[in-house]
Amino acid sequence: MAQEKKISVEELSKHNSQSDLWASINGTVWDLTSFAPSHPGGLSIILEYAGQDASRAYNEVHGPSLASRSLPSFALKGQLDESTVTDEWKSKQVSNLEHTSTPDEKPDLGQILNTYDFEAAAQKALSKKTWAFQSGAANDNLTHAANVNFYRRIFFRPRVMVGVPEPDTSTNILGNKFSVPVFSSPAALAKLAHPDGELAMYRAAHSRGTTIIACNNASFSYGEIRSAIEDQDYPLLYQLYVNKDRKATEKLVKDVSALKPAAILVTVDLPVVGKREADERIQLDAGYQAQKHMAVQSVAGDKKGSGLARSTGSFIDPNLKWSDIGWLKTLTDAPIFVKGVQSAADARKALEHGCAGIYISNHGGRAVDTAQPSILTLLEIQANCPEVLDQMEVFIDGGVRRGSDILKAICLGASAVCLGRPYLYAVGYGEEGVGHLIDILKDELETAMQQVGIRSLSEAHPGLLNTAELDPYVYRGDTHPYARKVVRRQSKL
Amino acid sequence: MAQEKKISVEELSKHNSQSDLWASINGTVWDLTSFAPSHPGGLSIILEYAGQDASRAYNEVHGPSLASRSLPSFALKGQLDESTVTDEWKSKQVSNLEHTSTPDEKPDLGQILNTYDFEAAAQKALSKKTWAFQSGAANDNLTHAANVNFYRRIFFRPRVMVGVPEPDTSTNILGNKFSVPVFSSPAALAKLAHPDGELAMYRAAHSRGTTIIACNNASFSYGEIRSAIEDQDYPLLYQLYVNKDRKATEKLVKDVSALKPAAILVTVDLPVVGKREADERIQLDAGYQAQKHMAVQSVAGDKKGSGLARSTGSFIDPNLKWSDIGWLKTLTDAPIFVKGVQSAADARKALEHGCAGIYISNHGGRAVDTAQPSILTLLEIQANCPEVLDQMEVFIDGGVRRGSDILKAICLGASAVCLGRPYLYAVGYGEEGVGHLIDILKDELETAMQQVGIRSLSEAHPGLLNTAELDPYVYRGDTHPYARKVVRRQSKL
Amino acid sequence: MAQEKKISVEELSKHNSQSDLWASINGTVWDLTSFAPSHPGGLSIILEYAGQDASRAYNEVHGPSLASRSLPSFALKGQLDESTVTDEWKSKQVSNLEHTSTPDEKPDLGQILNTYDFEAAAQKALSKKTWAFQSGAANDNLTHAANVNFYRRIFFRPRVMVGVPEPDTSTNILGNKFSVPVFSSPAALAKLAHPDGELAMYRAAHSRGTTIIACNNASFSYGEIRSAIEDQDYPLLYQLYVNKDRKATEKLVKDVSALKPAAILVTVDLPVVGKREADERIQLDAGYQAQKHMAVQSVAGDKKGSGLARSTGSFIDPNLKWSDIGWLKTLTDAPIFVKGVQSAADARKALEHGCAGIYISNHGGRAVDTAQPSILTLLEIQANCPEVLDQMEVFIDGGVRRGSDILKAICLGASAVCLGRPYLYAVGYGEEGVGHLIDILKDELETAMQQVGIRSLSEAHPGLLNTAELDPYVYRGDTHPYARKVVRRQSKL
Amino acid sequence: MAQEKKISVEELSKHNSQSDLWASINGTVWDLTSFAPSHPGGLSIILEYAGQDASRAYNEVHGPSLASRSLPSFALKGQLDESTVTDEWKSKQVSNLEHTSTPDEKPDLGQILNTYDFEAAAQKALSKKTWAFQSGAANDNLTHAANVNFYRRIFFRPRVMVGVPEPDTSTNILGNKFSVPVFSSPAALAKLAHPDGELAMYRAAHSRGTTIIACNNASFSYGEIRSAIEDQDYPLLYQLYVNKDRKATEKLVKDVSALKPAAILVTVDLPVVGKREADERIQLDAGYQAQKHMAVQSVAGDKKGSGLARSTGSFIDPNLKWSDIGWLKTLTDAPIFVKGVQSAADARKALEHGCAGIYISNHGGRAVDTAQPSILTLLEIQANCPEVLDQMEVFIDGGVRRGSDILKAICLGASAVCLGRPYLYAVGYGEEGVGHLIDILKDELETAMQQVGIRSLSEAHPGLLNTAELDPYVYRGDTHPYARKVVRRQSKL
Repeated sequence: MAQEKKISVEELSKHNSQSDLWASINGTVWDLTSFAPSHPGGLSIILEYAGQDASRAYNEVHGPSLASRSLPSFALKGQLDESTVTDEWKSKQVSNLEHTSTPDEKPDLGQILNTYDFEAAAQKALSKKTWAFQSGAANDNLTHAANVNFYRRIFFRPRVMVGVPEPDTSTNILGNKFSVPVFSSPAALAKLAHPDGELAMYRAAHSRGTTIIACNNASFSYGEIRSAIEDQDYPLLYQLYVNKDRKATEKLVKDVSALKPAAILVTVDLPVVGKREADERIQLDAGYQAQKHMAVQSVAGDKKGSGLARSTGSFIDPNLKWSDIGWLKTLTDAPIFVKGVQSAADARKALEHGCAGIYISNHGGRAVDTAQPSILTLLEIQANCPEVLDQMEVFIDGGVRRGSDILKAICLGASAVCLGRPYLYAVGYGEEGVGHLIDILKDELETAMQQVGIRSLSEAHPGLLNTAELDPYVYRGDTHPYARKVVRRQSKL
Repeated sequence: MAQEKKISVEELSKHNSQSDLWASINGTVWDLTSFAPSHPGGLSIILEYAGQDASRAYNEVHGPSLASRSLPSFALKGQLDESTVTDEWKSKQVSNLEHTSTPDEKPDLGQILNTYDFEAAAQKALSKKTWAFQSGAANDNLTHAANVNFYRRIFFRPRVMVGVPEPDTSTNILGNKFSVPVFSSPAALAKLAHPDGELAMYRAAHSRGTTIIACNNASFSYGEIRSAIEDQDYPLLYQLYVNKDRKATEKLVKDVSALKPAAILVTVDLPVVGKREADERIQLDAGYQAQKHMAVQSVAGDKKGSGLARSTGSFIDPNLKWSDIGWLKTLTDAPIFVKGVQSAADARKALEHGCAGIYISNHGGRAVDTAQPSILTLLEIQANCPEVLDQMEVFIDGGVRRGSDILKAICLGASAVCLGRPYLYAVGYGEEGVGHLIDILKDELETAMQQVGIRSLSEAHPGLLNTAELDPYVYRGDTHPYARKVVRRQSKL
Repeated sequence: MAQEKKISVEELSKHNSQSDLWASINGTVWDLTSFAPSHPGGLSIILEYAGQDASRAYNEVHGPSLASRSLPSFALKGQLDESTVTDEWKSKQVSNLEHTSTPDEKPDLGQILNTYDFEAAAQKALSKKTWAFQSGAANDNLTHAANVNFYRRIFFRPRVMVGVPEPDTSTNILGNKFSVPVFSSPAALAKLAHPDGELAMYRAAHSRGTTIIACNNASFSYGEIRSAIEDQDYPLLYQLYVNKDRKATEKLVKDVSALKPAAILVTVDLPVVGKREADERIQLDAGYQAQKHMAVQSVAGDKKGSGLARSTGSFIDPNLKWSDIGWLKTLTDAPIFVKGVQSAADARKALEHGCAGIYISNHGGRAVDTAQPSILTLLEIQANCPEVLDQMEVFIDGGVRRGSDILKAICLGASAVCLGRPYLYAVGYGEEGVGHLIDILKDELETAMQQVGIRSLSEAHPGLLNTAELDPYVYRGDTHPYARKVVRRQSKL
Repeated sequence: MAQEKKISVEELSKHNSQSDLWASINGTVWDLTSFAPSHPGGLSIILEYAGQDASRAYNEVHGPSLASRSLPSFALKGQLDESTVTDEWKSKQVSNLEHTSTPDEKPDLGQILNTYDFEAAAQKALSKKTWAFQSGAANDNLTHAANVNFYRRIFFRPRVMVGVPEPDTSTNILGNKFSVPVFSSPAALAKLAHPDGELAMYRAAHSRGTTIIACNNASFSYGEIRSAIEDQDYPLLYQLYVNKDRKATEKLVKDVSALKPAAILVTVDLPVVGKREADERIQLDAGYQAQKHMAVQSVAGDKKGSGLARSTGSFIDPNLKWSDIGWLKTLTDAPIFVKGVQSAADARKALEHGCAGIYISNHGGRAVDTAQPSILTLLEIQANCPEVLDQMEVFIDGGVRRGSDILKAICLGASAVCLGRPYLYAVGYGEEGVGHLIDILKDELETAMQQVGIRSLSEAHPGLLNTAELDPYVYRGDTHPYARKVVRRQSKL
């Protein structure tokens, strides 16, 4: 059996090229030659470890079972012969993440009062590379900024003397009761911030009576995350990227569906990964020879850059269509959401195609820059097809930083609100950090509910808000004066 | 008699736990065990002085009679035996307010030209803790900033050649004539800024022909404030928080009413205290062991924070309802105002429930952040129920910094304008400072009246203003396009 | 004859109190006791020179003939006996303006490209006190800033290919042809910036084919300014403040009218002088004992401050009314303008009262702060009473900094545009500086005309502008939704 | 033959005045006396080299053939006698551009991720003088800033799940297919940034499947640029300034037309050159005696300044009219565009006069400041005369910095988009730099297309955008409330 074969460091070192590429991971030696080009994280990063030990870099972002689940059995070459390992060879195990600060620079969790404090703490604690990957957005970050600012431009019109002794923040979604309508947005590679990654996030959410959305590109598999808590019937959501290799997606959806996810949310706002310049700049600045080489090459060819984000997305199928919803339904019994709706027109389409819900998102400003802010899309849906809010679940993310933002989205018809970066920043403190984040948001939500004068979220309604500053920015559908005027002219000459 | 019993320092020191909690205050020893948990300022601050002398901290915020009026007679344990007091023990009397500057850093009063100068002076002169408590607002301080900025976005359209020799700023409210329609907002604990606290404020207001609103949480009791001037018939207003312990409120209202207040203003915009992060951060940063301990505890439990503000409000009844106006009327003959109206709908309700007036306020941006600015609520009332302005007195606070702001509010239908922080900052200079503040505002108001072309406030009208920049932001009642569209959907799945 | 009497320094020094107040000015000794309280520049500044020589301070702001023209003959006490003057006594002649920089710090005139360069140069070259007086505006300077910014928010919509070889900037106003429709706003005390003051301004304007508006409070009298050029028929405008002492005004108007001014412009936007805090702060900071004393006094009394501006305006009659236009017409044949119109309503009134023109102005933001910007008032007049633009001359000042601003005002219907501060800053360079300023503005105007596609100012029209950003801010007269809703309510209780 | 005559340095040095002005250029001696006053770059710069060698300054901005093509044969005096050239004389050859940095301070091209990076690199690498000339705009640069910002205020409303595997950015213009609808704006003197100047720009554009617009004031002639690539049929556009000397223009248009340009674009937005203060300030600051002299002279006369830009434009005919389109058509068969359209009215006129296209431009904010931003003019055309977009080619420049900006312009009806400064900054890296720029823009455009959900540019339409923030700023033609109200009044008095 290959599984038992002992392989020496000398032997491993010979397979160090793209056409013959071995690496050892946690004691097992794999032949990655055929896998490397389709590595979600990119070929180049694997090339750096050709003929070497990749354990440290692997463990920084992946759970232990990922290699054996993802690689074909014929790729297994044997076990690393520990007797041939020298200290010098060991010392070459390099991290892919250079740290810029030591963990103790982070403030105590007790000093963290809000999501902004979590952000400041993460910027201190994370490596520059991880910070660029997690905090960055597309191009000039205009949508990222507008996501936040547009919430701030909605005023409350509180009602007084209604008796608000014990505000009830609970909600019922997809037949499940949650203590607060707050989930983590699906975000890749939580291990970058903490070894427990998504496991910690799920444990904390469960302990607070809510849940998370497990990401297709999580550090841990859906099954691993599910098993982080004892109650295997507790609702957990799953986010899916449809792979260019549709067979791979079919297998994945069936595997996940066997574990009864509360819903599957198909991401549709990232047919190609956006241009994350902070991320790309880090790669260029880092001085890694292999990557610098790539960047120089790209001068003459592809200008899409080589950042972590761009590599991560290379397997996503840009050819996904509405008709594929039918195909997905043949693969699973789970309710299906479309994640990334950005117009009333597409909200209507999701309803027509029998989706259980939509998820309004511009991918945290990481897809196309200057995409309209999420809350503006929610207002657009209200103005053009309010029936959508009645007939489907509506999730929304992008710019939520306060409990009062959550209340605003709920008042405008959302079922639940998701946060991406704040959860990644909080998980730097592990499960306790994520719990603290949820506690903060729930407390801020309760306070806001009492102060605007409602006792439960079912009493939330648009009249509690003054959205007058944003109303003129709302796209008003087919009455838009430019909607029909222009057809692309052909050259006349 | 317990009152005469001598108690040694040694004896006092034994009662130093939460379950057996004694402290000496100005020579008298009290058993605070049963009182401490309901201390408006919070339990933790009392715990710091268990078994010790609390005089210095007590006197920093409370008038001398408060203890004997608030504590039951059985709590009186005796008199501190001065012969047992050592210098070392005395030196342990700590201030709860660490000073960051010496008093002489403050500019001379003659250098203070406007309310902003008072603010700058206060920031220099106050302890960090008091500054955070008084200057801070909720969350991101967006409402606090908008309160000020929205006044600045209203233009005057002055009228010329109308003859304005001697502008008359006087007004008649509730049957009383005041020299200017300017009162202090009810604000807690003026002693934090000056030993004379509210006494100085009332004396100065009286000397200028106007008055103040005595706060439920003032450093001095209503009776003490009333007695600060000789004329016991001079109008003084009273602001009331309704206590969770309604019996306590009944007693309080009856006691105050016996002193014939010009009106009682029930605060309704603070069913729970807002999240004042500057205030909470000071607590966390201060390094006080007891408080740090609390903060750490709160990681696992309550995220509402432990600031001075949050503690202060813990006795307020969140279950107050419109029907309670009737109950209050049975307790007093004084006219009743509802303080904290933030929508036209509630202005109408106050009228229906027979209130004498409303007080438009978002608690200086200290309740729910992003509550709409006060002047926008006044415009909303104009647009939706102008009859309210005709049939009730309308006070307004929030963002008034100039005499021209006062004139704008009056032009839009307010009866009187209140200022909170500026009075607290001015009282740092004692009675003379508050007098100087009122003089400045009156002079600015007179100058503005002459320059826009009116001789008395009865000539003020909206046509003197150009509110075009704010008009689109005004909520237009039931014609609001979103008002009826959304009902909270139940889960469909 | 008193005129010939020799008075020794010793004798002069004895009359050094408010009740017996002598001073020598350029060799003549005057008894100022009865005059000092009505000194337009304030009593306190004269008190500083009681019993002393005031020549230096006098010459800094006044032309040589002012004393003999303003003071009654009985005030003349004699000639200073030069033989009694000692060096020590001479050395006490103090300047009222402390200089903060030497003249050579100013850039060469050839380096001055625009009005902003003039402003920067003036800030360097002027004393702090003069800078505060000339550059400052009221309260928070919001109108001052908006005056400039609102011009910037108007876009041009240039027309191309119309043939614009030699743009003609000339205009015909009141029967006089001017090379450019640009005058200096009437501004006090140009001598503060340059010894030639208004004389230099008038000479430069004349040499460029335009004129100035001589200010009631100029350093030189109307006659002196008129005589600065040879052509005594050249048009010169005169600005008038109506004095509380109406007889004084009657004499003044008749004296000026004898010299055939092209028009008399009555200032009506300053019934009281605004609060110029920069100006007041300088007084307080300067450390002058006499003034400091005044400031301290003012703590207990008047909060109107003691700045140069406030003192200067104390003689202005706040009781001026529209009916006084008739009175003025009995005193002069000159066309009468009302300067300081700030609403369409008052533009209509000026027409009804037979004025030859109006002058839109908010006194450079120096009267009531948050008065609407001047260009907005012009738009208001267009929207509500465009006939005014047809039937009267319309001048406008406030915020004009570029030739393109001039063109915008002309497009919107103004006859001429005035600039205040830029002329004061330019006159620091004397006649050559003011000439340079007019050259710059004329060149910028010509360039703008060619680039928007007009050959003469008679072709200017509103369609060359895109005012869409400002249009919503324009007050729309009686259709304003708040115009009739609110009457001041009387107390109901 | 004069061409062969040897001329000594001593002889050359004698002709050193404006009335007898010789200079040597690359070994040839020319008599420039009659040419110098009409030098497009101004007389003064030539005067600096009177009687000297001008090769270095000439080569910095001009291609080698320009002198012999532009100067009459009688101006040729002979060849410089190299044997008389001394080292000392040689060392006097001065650059007209002082460098502030060495070339190696520029980042590697591989580090350039977007147009802003190119800008930052150029600011480092260019001389202050060239930077001021290329980056500067008119007066306060308000239009320059608004050009960029108005694109940022348009949001995308992406459509999802439409299948976008391989976006096609190609377009067909004037019968030619281009890989991307992106051209360089015509900009003067690219040699200032790189010796290959426009040659490099054209080679790079051709290699990427697109083209450039050769500028009338390019460093190289149209023929030289055309010859930079082998394919003489490849489409190249030509931009024309009509010369005050119409005969010169006739010759030029005929010469260019003989080379079959794809179109001739007549610039009409610069009847006079705008006031570029950064440019003028450099001249003043540089300390060049000749130029300082000019500036001082200008104090007394022309205030138009002496910057590179102002000089460059002095030959442009300000008297160009719409009727001249007919004249141009008699000179050429090439399609004619009008470059500089800034209103719907002029777009209509271009159609009426039979133009093949219009080019919306405000000259990069370098003509009249506060001209409306280009994208606003495109919206104005849509709102008032959408037929123009159907019947003519529409180019647009001004503010395009991202591929997403390109897509926005195309969605709103543009045929192609031009960029000026970014190409000049990129050409500092030569052909490779310009290629990199086009690659970046094409990649950003592809990414944006996929993310908003279109497969080819023919699918672009206004409904993909939310222009609600800009819509209120669009001029609405004859319905504009001010369009007819004001006529210039004549003086009434």
